[in-house]
Amino acid sequence: MERADIAIIGTGPAGISAAINAKIRGKSFILFGSSKLSAKVGCSEKIENYPAVCQVTGSELNGLFHKQLEELEIPITEEQITGVYNMGEYYLIMADQTSYEATSVIIATGVEAVRAIPGEREFLGRGVSYCATCDGRLYKGRTIAVICDNKHMEDEVDFLCGLAKTVYYFPLFKSGLTRENLVRPDAGAAGISGTDSVESIMLKNGEKLDVDGVFFLKQSVSADVLLRGLEMDNGHIVVDHNMATNLRGCFAAGDCTGRPYQISKAVGEGNTAAHSAMAYLAEVSGLYKNSLNEDKG
Amino acid sequence: MERADIAIIGTGPAGISAAINAKIRGKSFILFGSSKLSAKVGCSEKIENYPAVCQVTGSELNGLFHKQLEELEIPITEEQITGVYNMGEYYLIMADQTSYEATSVIIATGVEAVRAIPGEREFLGRGVSYCATCDGRLYKGRTIAVICDNKHMEDEVDFLCGLAKTVYYFPLFKSGLTRENLVRPDAGAAGISGTDSVESIMLKNGEKLDVDGVFFLKQSVSADVLLRGLEMDNGHIVVDHNMATNLRGCFAAGDCTGRPYQISKAVGEGNTAAHSAMAYLAEVSGLYKNSLNEDKG
Repeated sequence: MERADIAIIGTGPAGISAAINAKIRGKSFILFGSSKLSAKVGCSEKIENYPAVCQVTGSELNGLFHKQLEELEIPITEEQITGVYNMGEYYLIMADQTSYEATSVIIATGVEAVRAIPGEREFLGRGVSYCATCDGRLYKGRTIAVICDNKHMEDEVDFLCGLAKTVYYFPLFKSGLTRENLVRPDAGAAGISGTDSVESIMLKNGEKLDVDGVFFLKQSVSADVLLRGLEMDNGHIVVDHNMATNLRGCFAAGDCTGRPYQISKAVGEGNTAAHSAMAYLAEVSGLYKNSLNEDKG
Repeated sequence: MERADIAIIGTGPAGISAAINAKIRGKSFILFGSSKLSAKVGCSEKIENYPAVCQVTGSELNGLFHKQLEELEIPITEEQITGVYNMGEYYLIMADQTSYEATSVIIATGVEAVRAIPGEREFLGRGVSYCATCDGRLYKGRTIAVICDNKHMEDEVDFLCGLAKTVYYFPLFKSGLTRENLVRPDAGAAGISGTDSVESIMLKNGEKLDVDGVFFLKQSVSADVLLRGLEMDNGHIVVDHNMATNLRGCFAAGDCTGRPYQISKAVGEGNTAAHSAMAYLAEVSGLYKNSLNEDKG
């Protein structure tokens, strides 16, 4: 597989803006995310502070983004990213089914709407999963808990119900979903416990339920879960004015870099991140050429 | 005169974005700049990387900005700002005819298209002026040089021709302007010399013309000319990720903070700068209340 110049992770306003600029400048890139674009934007009733677009609803704005992506022929790769690995010269991006390589990465994954609960990070990969498609089959015939923060991901809950023996379901929104093996506990999830791997989930009422695994179906997971070693500050990626993170070749844009959580801030940062990634590409390609010359010399 | 919460200097995309957010959040503010908005935007033939607005010309985009300012009832104060002074608790903004006070300032003045020539900064206020309206009358019947970087300001050249005895004119664009007392030197301006004040302008061909004053009619003047003490780096205002400058209560947004010179970057930074200014206002109003309480105690 060819190595892309830029991997853009996220199809909210920041990721879209980065992709538009990469496209216009003729870079090879992969835009990962949902083709439904940002659910957070989509839910906004009225947006009146996005310059040049007067009074739109969020779904109208997403419609305008869609139209622009189509006109510029920018495809969306709808795979859930499970991890990004810094390989020095490039980044390895692990998705559900396959892996990708890119020289630079722009993280535009939004901000975690719901704070992690105790045990969530500690047991990641040892009973805790963020991806039903990737890890669901491991829990066939077993007992799991599922915490879901938005309606758009409820089809994944349904998918897990088809595999597991029992699903303790904790929706963080009004949900009417019913399945034979779906159980709604009396209180919210407070924490996860176990020794080597997940053994039980604690409820806010003090109760404890034995489970083999816990799925968190979240729109956005904190970026340091995706890419270890990324410098964070209070849940946000630390960036400079050029949107550079502490990792060379890795840039970030949008809500994941901090407040204000605003569409225009996100598109601006996506633009800057794309330009910084392109400057980085020029820099490393120059270095590469120099090292080739040195080899010849 | 009432002190405004925020003075926004510049009516390009960054200043407009800041003003929209200040308006929506109910802050008192003054938006200084040209009601023609950004000439740089206006001249763009095609803009295809502003998210949600497909393929517009610059003048169409300025039209959309105009419409939004009108709908939100945001007036533009069309006065040329000659200086901004940090008074500690507030900023004093000197305009052509009057002065204004504001608790915080957002500088969104764009980037100087043409680098300053030797002597330009040194003789500012001693024969060098950036404002025909403010200083033109000082040169009635005298000899001046005028350097103008854009067609939109040529009416000011005309105004100066009506006052001065002789005008040596250096347009930095194709200009067809003719006046009886307008002289076009054979070469471009290379520098300004004098002892206490301006005495002559040097040309690139080595020639020297005696003048009493030199006017620079520029769309954007470097921000540190406007506000002394502002930390700059290679012609750009140094800002952090919150758009804060080195001066408390002073924020910056858009091209003046550095590359990329892009509309979406400018609107994003204008949004962030407005939110940072509002956070600053909340902080100082809290401090003010605390100091009142201490006085009472």
